[in-house]
Amino acid sequence: MKIAILPGDGIGPEIMKQAVKVLNVLGERFELETADVGGAGYAGHGHPLPASTLALARAADAVLFGAVGDYKYDSLERSLRPEQAILGLRKELALFANLRPAILYPELAGASTLKPEVVSGLDILIIRELTGDIYFGKPRGVRECPDGPFKGEREGFDTMRYAESEIRRIAHVAFQAAQKRDRRVTSVDKANVLETFQFWRDIVTDVHKEYPDIELDHMYVDNAAMQLVRAPKKFDVLVTGNMFGDILSDCAAMLTGSIGMLPSASLDANNKGLYEPSHGSAPDIAGKGIANPLATILSAAMMLRFSLGRPEQAERIETAVKAVLAQGLRTADIYEPGTTRVGTDEMGDAVVKAL
Amino acid sequence: MKIAILPGDGIGPEIMKQAVKVLNVLGERFELETADVGGAGYAGHGHPLPASTLALARAADAVLFGAVGDYKYDSLERSLRPEQAILGLRKELALFANLRPAILYPELAGASTLKPEVVSGLDILIIRELTGDIYFGKPRGVRECPDGPFKGEREGFDTMRYAESEIRRIAHVAFQAAQKRDRRVTSVDKANVLETFQFWRDIVTDVHKEYPDIELDHMYVDNAAMQLVRAPKKFDVLVTGNMFGDILSDCAAMLTGSIGMLPSASLDANNKGLYEPSHGSAPDIAGKGIANPLATILSAAMMLRFSLGRPEQAERIETAVKAVLAQGLRTADIYEPGTTRVGTDEMGDAVVKAL
Ligand SMILES: CC(C)[C@H](C(=O)O)[C@@H](O)C(=O)O
Ligand SMILES: CC(C)[C@H](C(=O)O)[C@@H](O)C(=O)O
Repeated sequence: MKIAILPGDGIGPEIMKQAVKVLNVLGERFELETADVGGAGYAGHGHPLPASTLALARAADAVLFGAVGDYKYDSLERSLRPEQAILGLRKELALFANLRPAILYPELAGASTLKPEVVSGLDILIIRELTGDIYFGKPRGVRECPDGPFKGEREGFDTMRYAESEIRRIAHVAFQAAQKRDRRVTSVDKANVLETFQFWRDIVTDVHKEYPDIELDHMYVDNAAMQLVRAPKKFDVLVTGNMFGDILSDCAAMLTGSIGMLPSASLDANNKGLYEPSHGSAPDIAGKGIANPLATILSAAMMLRFSLGRPEQAERIETAVKAVLAQGLRTADIYEPGTTRVGTDEMGDAVVKAL
Repeated sequence: MKIAILPGDGIGPEIMKQAVKVLNVLGERFELETADVGGAGYAGHGHPLPASTLALARAADAVLFGAVGDYKYDSLERSLRPEQAILGLRKELALFANLRPAILYPELAGASTLKPEVVSGLDILIIRELTGDIYFGKPRGVRECPDGPFKGEREGFDTMRYAESEIRRIAHVAFQAAQKRDRRVTSVDKANVLETFQFWRDIVTDVHKEYPDIELDHMYVDNAAMQLVRAPKKFDVLVTGNMFGDILSDCAAMLTGSIGMLPSASLDANNKGLYEPSHGSAPDIAGKGIANPLATILSAAMMLRFSLGRPEQAERIETAVKAVLAQGLRTADIYEPGTTRVGTDEMGDAVVKAL
């Protein structure tokens, strides 16, 4: 089994190193091949998603991705900036289903800015559609405003859109995920304002007919943002579009106070996937050896489960991560008095040891 | 001075009654005229924003708005649903600047789901552009997908757009509001993905040149949602577009745990405005006499300050509201053991008495 390892920028390389250590001690015969992506792709090959990197990602059975982005690339034109790499990979590999669990580990309850009773035991799954919506819709650009009160002025514009089958397939993913959980799906939209999301609501409602065992409700995105803060534990599976999902999944991750712990999976129709931590490249702490590698290690576990058919290895890793938390080991982002502060490498080593 | 009173649906009429009581004891000669809006507009006149209501709103110096929406109108076609009333009023009256303070009253610190140290003393101002963006952009609808992999299928679509002068005017509002506060503006966008918001960022940066006394930073919307949960007190003024503002302002309001306390103002270029509580119509508790009228009363105070040139009356009301909180009076939504639970009418009466 071939795994593409794309460390990226900022803390990407140091956290990826730990995940690779973990993969290497599982006793499986993985072929790991590393390539540049993001700012590193631009620096080495003139493009954030070099053709050779994309070819590797296509050829691999799964992609493990670190993080991209660094201040030094901020002034590049948009098409060359690091984040184009992740957008390009999603689109090119047709990774339409982004699964982002927001889980609060009991040991880390104190790290949340929310009161313990509001978040303790939190376990929700956000499913974000990842290849449609206003992220890729056309036309888009800056043009002369064609009509209305601002006619003749410059305007920036984008197109939000969802085709019926795009909504159907992500709805199926959500209902099927709920079947393995608490059997409740909340579909988040803005049907009261947007045609795209009235259509979304209609199609999700239709797909739901095939899942009589699942409870479905619909919620407006503004209300969903409120309910995530007010009573996040009321959710089970939350499914939404690319743009709303971007905002809500980050909000949900932050509720746990330990975004450094949260993995994510982006899957295509055949469960081939790209796996990455929910956090970013954190260039401010890059190279200091203090970044939390657990989200990347847990992303590798998701990869073993969803794309590589090794659920028992996934569980081994997850159990090892829980064990190091129980031992009191903490990187700086989740450190609390009374626990033991460790660096990136030590945390990786501790997981390896626990395995 | 003529004030249009639009109570609307759900708890709208009962909370509005309290605000009217307050306005009536200020010793000013206001002419208050009431009209149906939302579901009540549809029920009485066949349209959520009856022509007579719109005419009154146009003729008035300011509009005090309750809330709209009720389950019983859910099955109406979109153009007849209650929320079209508020969208129509914003557009017709050109109310492009929505000011939503998120303030945590010290007495109510316990009502928040966030830890007291994270939110105590919270005082941020969200400025949401209200007449542009994907809310009103055209074309929009459901059509046959014109090209790409889903060609021929049905798709829902909308147009996001901002013209240069729309961005300029809301940026000016934000910088000028910051001059009366802590002189910091965070402009929230998604410039890394959306052309509309790269353009937004460019124009806001340009307008900023006229305000060298104000510190400006730019933040992506997903990060802003995280920072609101992680460290909301770091913000002073936050300015953003209509769609992102809808989500973030509700999220920020919920951080306080007392959305029943938060007023809002929607202003045109001449400071004529519509004033409404930040919460909705709460049809589930309508008619029970337990709704919190303070957000509506405080909206009336904002109206006196921004549109009616009576800042001293605004302050009288705000002081009276603080006094009733200090007396320990609480409606159900903000009740805590050790305080005195009161109903809608009693709360209104208490404010009148404190005046
Ligand atoms: C980097 C950016 C383009 C990306 C997105 O908006 O999807 C990121 O925020 C994410 O959620 O993975
Ligand atoms: C009712 C709805 C159309 C409205 C909006 O989305 O603007 C509401 O959520 C608000 O924020 O005032």
